[in-house]
Amino acid sequence: MALIVQKYGGTSVANVERIRAVAERVAKFKMLGHQVVVVLSAMSGETNRLIALAKEIQARPDPRELDMLVSTGEQVTISLLAMALKDLGLKAKSYTGGQVRILTDNAFTKARILSIDEGNMRRDLDSGHVVVVAGFQGVDADGNITTLGRGGSDTTGVALAAALKADECQIYTDVDGVYTTDPRIVPEARRLKTVTFEEMLEMASLGSKVLQIRAVEFAGKYHVKLRVLSSFQDEGDGTLITFEENDSMEQPVISGIAFNRDEAKITVVGVPDQPGVAYKILGPVADANIDVDMIVQNVGHENTTDFTFTVHRNDFNKTLDIVKAHAAAIGARTVTGDDKIAKVSIVGVGMRSHVGVARKMFEMLSKENINLQMISTSEIKISVVVEDKYMELAVRALHQGFELDKAGA
Amino acid sequence: MALIVQKYGGTSVANVERIRAVAERVAKFKMLGHQVVVVLSAMSGETNRLIALAKEIQARPDPRELDMLVSTGEQVTISLLAMALKDLGLKAKSYTGGQVRILTDNAFTKARILSIDEGNMRRDLDSGHVVVVAGFQGVDADGNITTLGRGGSDTTGVALAAALKADECQIYTDVDGVYTTDPRIVPEARRLKTVTFEEMLEMASLGSKVLQIRAVEFAGKYHVKLRVLSSFQDEGDGTLITFEENDSMEQPVISGIAFNRDEAKITVVGVPDQPGVAYKILGPVADANIDVDMIVQNVGHENTTDFTFTVHRNDFNKTLDIVKAHAAAIGARTVTGDDKIAKVSIVGVGMRSHVGVARKMFEMLSKENINLQMISTSEIKISVVVEDKYMELAVRALHQGFELDKAGA
Repeated sequence: MALIVQKYGGTSVANVERIRAVAERVAKFKMLGHQVVVVLSAMSGETNRLIALAKEIQARPDPRELDMLVSTGEQVTISLLAMALKDLGLKAKSYTGGQVRILTDNAFTKARILSIDEGNMRRDLDSGHVVVVAGFQGVDADGNITTLGRGGSDTTGVALAAALKADECQIYTDVDGVYTTDPRIVPEARRLKTVTFEEMLEMASLGSKVLQIRAVEFAGKYHVKLRVLSSFQDEGDGTLITFEENDSMEQPVISGIAFNRDEAKITVVGVPDQPGVAYKILGPVADANIDVDMIVQNVGHENTTDFTFTVHRNDFNKTLDIVKAHAAAIGARTVTGDDKIAKVSIVGVGMRSHVGVARKMFEMLSKENINLQMISTSEIKISVVVEDKYMELAVRALHQGFELDKAGA
Repeated sequence: MALIVQKYGGTSVANVERIRAVAERVAKFKMLGHQVVVVLSAMSGETNRLIALAKEIQARPDPRELDMLVSTGEQVTISLLAMALKDLGLKAKSYTGGQVRILTDNAFTKARILSIDEGNMRRDLDSGHVVVVAGFQGVDADGNITTLGRGGSDTTGVALAAALKADECQIYTDVDGVYTTDPRIVPEARRLKTVTFEEMLEMASLGSKVLQIRAVEFAGKYHVKLRVLSSFQDEGDGTLITFEENDSMEQPVISGIAFNRDEAKITVVGVPDQPGVAYKILGPVADANIDVDMIVQNVGHENTTDFTFTVHRNDFNKTLDIVKAHAAAIGARTVTGDDKIAKVSIVGVGMRSHVGVARKMFEMLSKENINLQMISTSEIKISVVVEDKYMELAVRALHQGFELDKAGA
């Protein structure tokens, strides 16, 4: 008998039929003798509907009231699932975040979990109940309803698994696991049986948005066994996220290929090669609440250097205006930009112990005549920026070159 | 400066525009220097939508989970109104029933209020906030969400007014007060400036469904000054519900005419005129959860008597079947029924001290050649059952005959 926390996202509870399907899956686990805690998101679209309603009333909705409002979305799904479970003859009980109680700070719309009282859940589990908990929400010390921010239901799932010392936290989603890359780009893409926590972090932030980064970090911190599975198919073990590197002999060098064509790059040409320049460039950008992703600065020559960074494509024009307005103050020669770019990254903990991975990557891209506009590396990731029309070609070439379709991970 | 509790029903918060209108009305009261607590229902139609959703999942939804589900309806409107009030520059804070805290018993879907903690509300009012409270809901001693049953928002309003010792509880609805009768039947019908608590009880139970009976009873018990007003028009003082009879010189004999064509009558003919017969007839009806309204039994003759009662028209066939099935056991000669009836009642505390009101009523109906099928009286009400096609005629004749269009109440 194991204690399993299962988290289902909005598409998995989008309507009555889907909710019934979740109940049937939970029933199977119960019949195998497991204790089950279920964490649910709101029906897909519901949170956006409520936020839109709030914005009709108040351009910038009051954060406390917004949390009061959107938290109803999960309250609807948990009560409906509890009914569906009872309809199957199971004992079930739903809990809002506040009822559990999931105590958070009072940072409305982006609260952090401080503690979880597992008493109610433990008592219900011991008496044979399925415990159904509203994801994404909690309560502050004053009893105000808070929410954890978008995707917070994953975090709730992992946090409950940590609090209950669950044997596994299963994240059910509309994909059946983590793939070597997007199967829509590379049909040979293969589901990974396991992926390390660090690889998952790099994959998630690079666009393979299967899991919320925060939830993965949380799982890492509390050593929660985390598994990604499909709620739309019954077979398959999904992908297990591990927190220890496997034996290096079996560890593939590269686990996956991530990509992102939502970015644009800005280059500040001919800035003085001296301290404080990066700060002067990025300060006004940060002030405008624009997130920056890659930052590359090469060695200078003749006392000047070039500084390049990428932002979300939607922020491109605004960022270009801001940087141009500050170009004179920075002492830059000129500012250029390009929003027809794509970022392609190879990710794998195995590359730590394998030299030459970068060279192999660059060679493959060179063979396809793809020019590299920017290069950036971390311990387990190498990212390049290319012209966006080459993105699919680059991903396919790397997927085949690193034999991701064959590897036995 | 007064402390006012305002309750708005579902049609008053049916959409963003209506919610804004409520906020503006509240703002006016705040500008006059009053402290305001607002109690809201769910958007009209929302509670029914949620119940229908629940029934798709479970034919008889689990009561605890149903309360968890439907309580989200008010949580949505309170947060939106708080936003609308803030958008007008007011301080505002919303509370669920549990947050207030409105403690109830654990009779899910029909809970009774046990106590109200006014601490949070008082503190917010004193710091200049408008307090917005979800109607219809509370929390039991174990922290489960409960609901008070249909129309429970009126009860919440009155209960909060009682707990806060408010100067007045204003019930905003889609009519602008209590009328002498339905203006759709009698165009000359007049709004009453005041109506006594007992008259209101009789009017409400007879079909003038302006206020929930339970809320009126509650107001009577705790001497809450209760006023019915329209949320769709700005002028008018509505109707004040009073709990002491006015000076009898000024008191009109009749305050209003109520009617109801949703009933059907069942007559058990020729039952033994002996103890236990009424019980034998109504026992099986009550067991089938059918509500009975009027019950009339006249003196017997030759050791038998006739027993007649009315039920909701929807229950007519079922009731007839039940009673017929038991007719032999009761020793009845036969069972007859009629669902083409209407009940017309005159209501007024004034009739206590005026003899001859009944005679006057019967005379008026006689002049119109309307036959009376059943007669039933209470201290402040006389009801007759007539063939349903005469209902409008009866109401108009009585309204004119008792000069309700002229009275100065």
